[in-house]
Amino acid sequence: MAVRDIAQKSKEASRALAAASYIQKKDALTKMAQSLIENQGKIIEANRKDMENAEANGVSGALLDRLRLTPERIADMSDAILKVRELPDPVGEFISMTERPNGLKIGQKRVPMGVVAIIYEARPNVTADAAALCIKTGNAVILRGGKEAINSNIAIVDALRDAISGILPGDAIALIKDTSRESARELMELHGLIDVLIPRGGAGLIKSVVENAKVPVIETGVGNCHIYIDEFADLDMALKILINAKTQRPGVCNAAESLLVHKNIASEFLPMAEKALCEKGVKILGCERTRAIIKADEATDDDFAREFLDLIISVKVVDSLDGAISHIAKYSTGHSEAIVTENYTNAQKFLDTVDSAAVYVNASTRFTDGGEFGFGAEIGISTQKLHARGPMGLLALTTTKYVIYGSGQIR
Amino acid sequence: MAVRDIAQKSKEASRALAAASYIQKKDALTKMAQSLIENQGKIIEANRKDMENAEANGVSGALLDRLRLTPERIADMSDAILKVRELPDPVGEFISMTERPNGLKIGQKRVPMGVVAIIYEARPNVTADAAALCIKTGNAVILRGGKEAINSNIAIVDALRDAISGILPGDAIALIKDTSRESARELMELHGLIDVLIPRGGAGLIKSVVENAKVPVIETGVGNCHIYIDEFADLDMALKILINAKTQRPGVCNAAESLLVHKNIASEFLPMAEKALCEKGVKILGCERTRAIIKADEATDDDFAREFLDLIISVKVVDSLDGAISHIAKYSTGHSEAIVTENYTNAQKFLDTVDSAAVYVNASTRFTDGGEFGFGAEIGISTQKLHARGPMGLLALTTTKYVIYGSGQIR
Repeated sequence: MAVRDIAQKSKEASRALAAASYIQKKDALTKMAQSLIENQGKIIEANRKDMENAEANGVSGALLDRLRLTPERIADMSDAILKVRELPDPVGEFISMTERPNGLKIGQKRVPMGVVAIIYEARPNVTADAAALCIKTGNAVILRGGKEAINSNIAIVDALRDAISGILPGDAIALIKDTSRESARELMELHGLIDVLIPRGGAGLIKSVVENAKVPVIETGVGNCHIYIDEFADLDMALKILINAKTQRPGVCNAAESLLVHKNIASEFLPMAEKALCEKGVKILGCERTRAIIKADEATDDDFAREFLDLIISVKVVDSLDGAISHIAKYSTGHSEAIVTENYTNAQKFLDTVDSAAVYVNASTRFTDGGEFGFGAEIGISTQKLHARGPMGLLALTTTKYVIYGSGQIR
Repeated sequence: MAVRDIAQKSKEASRALAAASYIQKKDALTKMAQSLIENQGKIIEANRKDMENAEANGVSGALLDRLRLTPERIADMSDAILKVRELPDPVGEFISMTERPNGLKIGQKRVPMGVVAIIYEARPNVTADAAALCIKTGNAVILRGGKEAINSNIAIVDALRDAISGILPGDAIALIKDTSRESARELMELHGLIDVLIPRGGAGLIKSVVENAKVPVIETGVGNCHIYIDEFADLDMALKILINAKTQRPGVCNAAESLLVHKNIASEFLPMAEKALCEKGVKILGCERTRAIIKADEATDDDFAREFLDLIISVKVVDSLDGAISHIAKYSTGHSEAIVTENYTNAQKFLDTVDSAAVYVNASTRFTDGGEFGFGAEIGISTQKLHARGPMGLLALTTTKYVIYGSGQIR
């Protein structure tokens, strides 16, 4: 089926879905969770095909691991759906209701977005996650996963559509089976049918969506995150935070990519950092002043702008807090930045001045995450300022409408 | 100066502006209001050039009137700035602050967007309005008005920049003096420099922005608004609402463009409507069943989809409330729709099911307006679902950031 036809059906489904009751949505989520378990044989068989194709195409270790589904991972996906089911339903809340002097009662009501499209890469668990979050919030979802996981995705979506049929319109969950660039491109252009498009994946995917989309987009997840060690830092705490932010899971967007060190503590802190980073196998790219203190390759301007997603870090010695703030303003992607300091005024200034989705004092940037923030679920991490910023929970999948009760008012 | 260079300066100004105090912003707004009055001679002289050029180019009555500035209109612009000054400042509010089990204190703080760009057409009052709203919310603004008003806009922006200098960075208010299509196009592509672009104008302008922008956009203002007269309507009230919504100010986006009438009251209501609409000089385009009851030209499918912005209305007889709802789902631009009915269940169903920014029972669609909603000001009316929907006040010009207080937390 053509992408436009799929989206047309999603739009129709979204109307029925917007009127679905809390109970219907809850039942659908229960059935979705059950169906993954019941169909795990089929899903794992389909996944085996994807794994074989990936191996034949020379896909590497980490990517291959992300693609792999096991009974345990399917049980985790199923549990995640049940967790989403238990979250409070944001839809239907009246954020405000006021009576105007002319007697009009104007309410602002939280409603589903309508049709949510998600373009993502190899991870098949995103398929079930995204579908659950959208059903929970009364949205129809169009999934456009990567070609590596296409067989897994077809099996998962078949199981989910089966599960909801009889409770909600089956078209509430749709998969674009054509994984060509053209199908993604077509999806980006369906203005009027898609209410929001969320790309989840690498910087290349996000850039392509931002440049080509004619539908509203939420930009997600590119994180060139900074850790700034202030001259008044507790250096032991600083070291722990640095090592955690850089190495605990280097391939994710909230991992640190760049270290800024105040000149007054550089000669003390950098050797400590060098030792601990080297123990974890992290390669250091440093500015000239860094390289005067520790061993490091030269960091270019491009290096300071790069999201390595790997055991590499760029390091710069700065003259002052202001120097750190300007560096971040120039190179950051606006995701997460942290200052380590015991100085109250410097902490507040950093929080006030750094223009990123999440700004930290004395904590690892790795906490920028829907689960860690207590949202119970996450559809992505927005690095734009429109609509949602930072980790996005269920609220980000809703909009509002004004509902006005009159008694014949005219102007 | 090239558009990119202007935007670069705006970005820098936005950083200083984000740190501006309430008092600084208030003082700047006071001076802006004064400066318009002090410079009214220059502004009116510049406006005279625009008026002469417009007349020479054969610009018509209503458009010419929108372009015209008089001492009274400049006084109104100045007063509007003072009104904005008095509104509560949304920036700095902590929407929430929670302590997580690990001791992290996570706050969500309302902050300025950063750089707001506005592309608009002939009305020079938008220049002062938009600048005031942006300064109030701590945003830098880039104004790209139409060529018809360029001399007026230059004079207004000169007065406003003079006014704020010494209090806020002058580049907080910027005007793109190049009014070519290319300058608008360039502005739309400045990803990373512009945090939100709001087009204000006709359907052609909005479409061009939606199709070409690589920066986040808020779609505004195209309104194919419907009035549905239910079989249980109070027909006198229905007539008053219809006439108000269609004729009180036909050229604006919240005016009604289409009338839907339940078949059971069509033969009684349509002749009433015909008489009242004809008295106001409204041309009627009707469906076949309409034309069997009253005199009207044939309404095509295109007519039902059109925003006339003129004394023209499309009329359709529907079989049921569901018929009205489906017609609206098919043809509406998602702006404002009203039902007139005394039936409680039908009223609730209309409110629940119609997917538009503002849905009314027994009131004119003309109330969809920031002022009427009690916002004190309006930067436009969003017809998209992302970020803001319906009339946008100061809140729509803000975003949030997460501010996290730690004590050494790592994952």
